Amino acid sequence: MNEIKSDCDIIVFGGHGDLAFRKLMPALYHLSNNGYIDETSRIITATRDAMSLEEHCRLTRSKLQEFLPEADFDEAKWLRFEKQLQVVIIDFGENESYSGLKALLDAYPQRDRVNYLSTAPDFFGAICKSLSQWELISPQSRVVLEKPIGRDLHSSRVINVEVLKYFDESQIYRIDHYLGKDTVQNIMALRFSNRFFMPLWDASNIDHIQITVAESVGVEGRWGYYDEYGAMRDMIQNHLMQLLCLVAMEPPCSVDADNVRDEKVKVLRSLRLMTPSDIEQKTVRAQYTQGASSGEPVPGYREGEGVSESNTETFAAIRVDIDNWRWNGVPFYLRSGKRMRQRNSEIVIYFKAVPHSIFVNQGKCISENKLVISLQPKESIHLQLMNKIPGLSEHMRLQKVELELNTPLNTTHKPDAYERLLLDVIRANPTLFMRLDEVEAAWKWADVILKGWQEDVVPMKSYSAGTDGPSAAVQLIARDGRSWHDE
Amino acid sequence: MNEIKSDCDIIVFGGHGDLAFRKLMPALYHLSNNGYIDETSRIITATRDAMSLEEHCRLTRSKLQEFLPEADFDEAKWLRFEKQLQVVIIDFGENESYSGLKALLDAYPQRDRVNYLSTAPDFFGAICKSLSQWELISPQSRVVLEKPIGRDLHSSRVINVEVLKYFDESQIYRIDHYLGKDTVQNIMALRFSNRFFMPLWDASNIDHIQITVAESVGVEGRWGYYDEYGAMRDMIQNHLMQLLCLVAMEPPCSVDADNVRDEKVKVLRSLRLMTPSDIEQKTVRAQYTQGASSGEPVPGYREGEGVSESNTETFAAIRVDIDNWRWNGVPFYLRSGKRMRQRNSEIVIYFKAVPHSIFVNQGKCISENKLVISLQPKESIHLQLMNKIPGLSEHMRLQKVELELNTPLNTTHKPDAYERLLLDVIRANPTLFMRLDEVEAAWKWADVILKGWQEDVVPMKSYSAGTDGPSAAVQLIARDGRSWHDE
Repeated sequence: MNEIKSDCDIIVFGGHGDLAFRKLMPALYHLSNNGYIDETSRIITATRDAMSLEEHCRLTRSKLQEFLPEADFDEAKWLRFEKQLQVVIIDFGENESYSGLKALLDAYPQRDRVNYLSTAPDFFGAICKSLSQWELISPQSRVVLEKPIGRDLHSSRVINVEVLKYFDESQIYRIDHYLGKDTVQNIMALRFSNRFFMPLWDASNIDHIQITVAESVGVEGRWGYYDEYGAMRDMIQNHLMQLLCLVAMEPPCSVDADNVRDEKVKVLRSLRLMTPSDIEQKTVRAQYTQGASSGEPVPGYREGEGVSESNTETFAAIRVDIDNWRWNGVPFYLRSGKRMRQRNSEIVIYFKAVPHSIFVNQGKCISENKLVISLQPKESIHLQLMNKIPGLSEHMRLQKVELELNTPLNTTHKPDAYERLLLDVIRANPTLFMRLDEVEAAWKWADVILKGWQEDVVPMKSYSAGTDGPSAAVQLIARDGRSWHDE
Repeated sequence: MNEIKSDCDIIVFGGHGDLAFRKLMPALYHLSNNGYIDETSRIITATRDAMSLEEHCRLTRSKLQEFLPEADFDEAKWLRFEKQLQVVIIDFGENESYSGLKALLDAYPQRDRVNYLSTAPDFFGAICKSLSQWELISPQSRVVLEKPIGRDLHSSRVINVEVLKYFDESQIYRIDHYLGKDTVQNIMALRFSNRFFMPLWDASNIDHIQITVAESVGVEGRWGYYDEYGAMRDMIQNHLMQLLCLVAMEPPCSVDADNVRDEKVKVLRSLRLMTPSDIEQKTVRAQYTQGASSGEPVPGYREGEGVSESNTETFAAIRVDIDNWRWNGVPFYLRSGKRMRQRNSEIVIYFKAVPHSIFVNQGKCISENKLVISLQPKESIHLQLMNKIPGLSEHMRLQKVELELNTPLNTTHKPDAYERLLLDVIRANPTLFMRLDEVEAAWKWADVILKGWQEDVVPMKSYSAGTDGPSAAVQLIARDGRSWHDE
C-alpha cells in the first residue's frame, strides 16, 4: 500500500515556525518512517535563524519529542529520519541569501521539489521570485501555500498573480488542513459511493445544514496576525467554505482534481451575494469580552496587546443561501468563533420530518433525522434516527448510529491531516487543494459581507469568553424557526 | 408504562399442548408478573386431559421451569401466578363438556374474555359453536386463531365462516407470531418515522428484496400435520407474506389496526397472479433427502413416518412481483425450507448501485448498499454501506452499521413475540393480527401456485438435509443476475 515515491526534496520555508514544528515535521517523520518518502529524499528547512545542521537536528529532535505522542518517538526511527534533514539559512526577502539552497538543490537537478511556504503571505512572492532567479523551479517543482491567501479578493489576486509568474496553476497547492481530515474525505466517499444517500441529498429531503467551527482558545499571542483577519477571513472564507463545498457540490464525474474543483467552484459561484439588508438580517459579528475558559478567568479580546480599538470580529454567524436547483430553499448556517464554550467543529445535516406522522395518535414523538459529521474534538460521523424502544412499549426513541469506524487498519497511528496533504503534494495529487478560481469565488462572496461590516451595516455584538457566542446568533437562526445543534 | 388492564379471563383451548407450554404460559407468566395482567384475572386452561387443578398447577410449574430461562423462574412469582390458574376438562367436539367452563366464566359475566384456540383448526368451529350455545360470548369476548387457517382459499373460508357465525370480525385475532417480534414492529417505526428512508423506499432506489425463513430442524414428529401443508402453506402464505406486506405497504394514515391492514391487503391484492409459465420460471419446490444436521446424519423427508409417497415440498423459493407504482420492476425473492444449513430468518433490501462511480478510475470497488433485517437466530437491523478506510489509504471498504440496539430499557427480560401479541389481544389492539381479507388475498395468490404444483408444472427437486436448498433456487435468482444473501 505504501507506494514508494521516487526521491524528492522537500523545502520548508519558515521551517522553524510553530506550524513547521507542530505539524509539518511530525507529519514528515511519520511519512518517512512508514515508507511514503524515499530514504534518499531530503527535508530541507529554510530559516532565517543562523544555525548549524547539528543544532538544527538537535532542535528538531527536541520539538518532535515535544509534539509527537510519546509512543511515536523512537530512537531508531529518529536516526533514520535525521539523515534526511538539511538546513539552509535564508532571509526570504534577500535574493542573495538563497545561494546555500541553490548549492543543495543543484546536487539533484532532476528531483521533484516540494516548496512548502510556511511563512507570512507577504513573503510568498519574494520566495517564488528568488527560486526563479536562482533557477530552482523545474517542471517537477510544486509550491504549497498556507492560508490566508490575502485578506480580500484584491490582495489575494496580488499574491496569486505574483506566485503565478513563476509557477503554473497546476504546480500550486493551496492548503486547507481541514480537507486532510479523514472524516472530511469520507464525506465524498459516503456521498458518492452509497446509493443510500443519493435521493436524500437535496432540497426535497434536507431542511437545512449547519457548519460550526468553534475554538475554546483565544488569540494566544497571535494578536498581530489575527486582528488583521478576524473570523471571516481566518475561518469562514476558507475552512467553512471548503466544508460547505464538499457537502453541497454536485457529483463530479470523477475524483480527478479538476473535476472535483470544477464542482466546488460551481457551488462558490452559486452563493447568493448579499445586499446590505441581507447583511443586516443574515450575518452576526461579535467580539468576546472577559469571561472564563476551563474554569479560569480570561481577558476580553480588546484587552489584548494593542487591539483596544479593534473592530475585528472574533465570532461570525452567517446564513448562506445557494442559488441552484439542488439547494433552493435550504439555508446553510455557518458560525465560527474564538473563546467559545468548547472546541467543536462539525457539519450537521438536518433532514425534514416525515410528511405525516402515522404514530401521532398514540402520542409518539417524532424527531427529525440528522447526520452529524464531527471533526473536532473527535472525528466521527453519526446518523440520528428513530426506532422502537425494545420490549412491550410502543414508543419510539432517538438513536445515534455511528457510520464511521475510526480504527485505522493494521496500525495504531492515526495520520494527521497534514500527513495526508503532504503525501498528496509529494504524489502530485491536487484534489484536496484549492484552485485559484475557488479562492477568488470565496473572496468575492466574503468581500461583500466584509464591506457591509466595514460600513457598520450590522453592529458589532459581544459575547462573554467561554460561551456559545452572542444571543444575536441564536436569534439569527431562531428567526427561521430553527436552532443551533447543541449536543 | 405498564398500564394495568381491568381484570379479564384468558381461556387457552388446547392448553396442555406444546405451544401452550412452550410459549403461551411463559408469556402469561411474564405479563402477569410485570403487571400487564391484573391479579384477579384468571388463566383458564381448557384441555381434554382429566386433571385436578393441583395436578395442572404442578404440571404447569414443571413446564415453566423447563421452558423459562433459569433466571426468570422465581418461587414468589410462581406463587403469585399460580393463584390465577384454573383448569377445565373439555372434549372440544362434545358440547356437554363445556359445562365446567360455563360455571367458571359465569362467575364474572362482565369480564373481558380472551379465547385462545391453540388447537387443530378442525376444532375452531366446534369450540366457537359451543361457546355460543353456552352463552359464553359477550361483546367483550375475543377469539385468537392460530395459523394455519385452512390449506387453501376454500378451506380457509369454511373455517372463517364458521367462526364468524359466533364472533364479529372485530373480535377475531388471527395470530402470526412473526409480527410480535420487536424487529418486525421496528420495520414500521423505521419506515414511517424517519425521513431518511422515505425517498429510498421504492423502485427508483431499491433493486430487489429477499425474504428468507430457513429452519435447520426437520419435521420432528409433526409428520401428520406437516405433510398436509408443506412450505407454501406452513410458511410462505402466512409468515413470509406478512413480512413482505410490512416492507412493501404504502404508509397507512395511522397505526390504527384497520388503516394498517387496509394497506397490507392492498399489497396482497397487488401480487401478480402466476400463469403456468410463470410458475415454471419463478417457483422452485423441493424435498430434503438424507444429509447432516449439526454434524449428525439425518434421514430424508420421505424416510419419515408414512410419507414415503409424499409430494409435499419442504422447501420453496418464489420470485414475487407486485403490480403497483411503488414496486414496478422490483422483484421480491422468497424462500423457506426445513433442514437447511442454518436457522436464519431475514429480510434483505438491496439498494441499487450509484448511477456512476466517480472512484472507478482509482480502482476502487463499489458495492451495493443493503439493509439487513434479521429475525433469527438473532434480531437486528443493520445497514451495509461504503466508507473510506481510515488513514492514508484512498480505498473504501464495506461497513456494517447497526440501526437497532437490542437492549430493552430498564429490564433484562426480552419479551417473546407471544408476550407482545397476547398483550395486544388483552388490550384489544388488533393491529398486528390478520384480517379476513388479508388471509383470503394471500390464499388467492398461493392457490394458483399450489394448483400448478399439483399439476406438476414444475418438477419436485431435492436437496440434501443441511444445505442451502436445491440448486434450482440458486438458478431462479441467478437468471435475473442476482444471488441469495449469504453472510
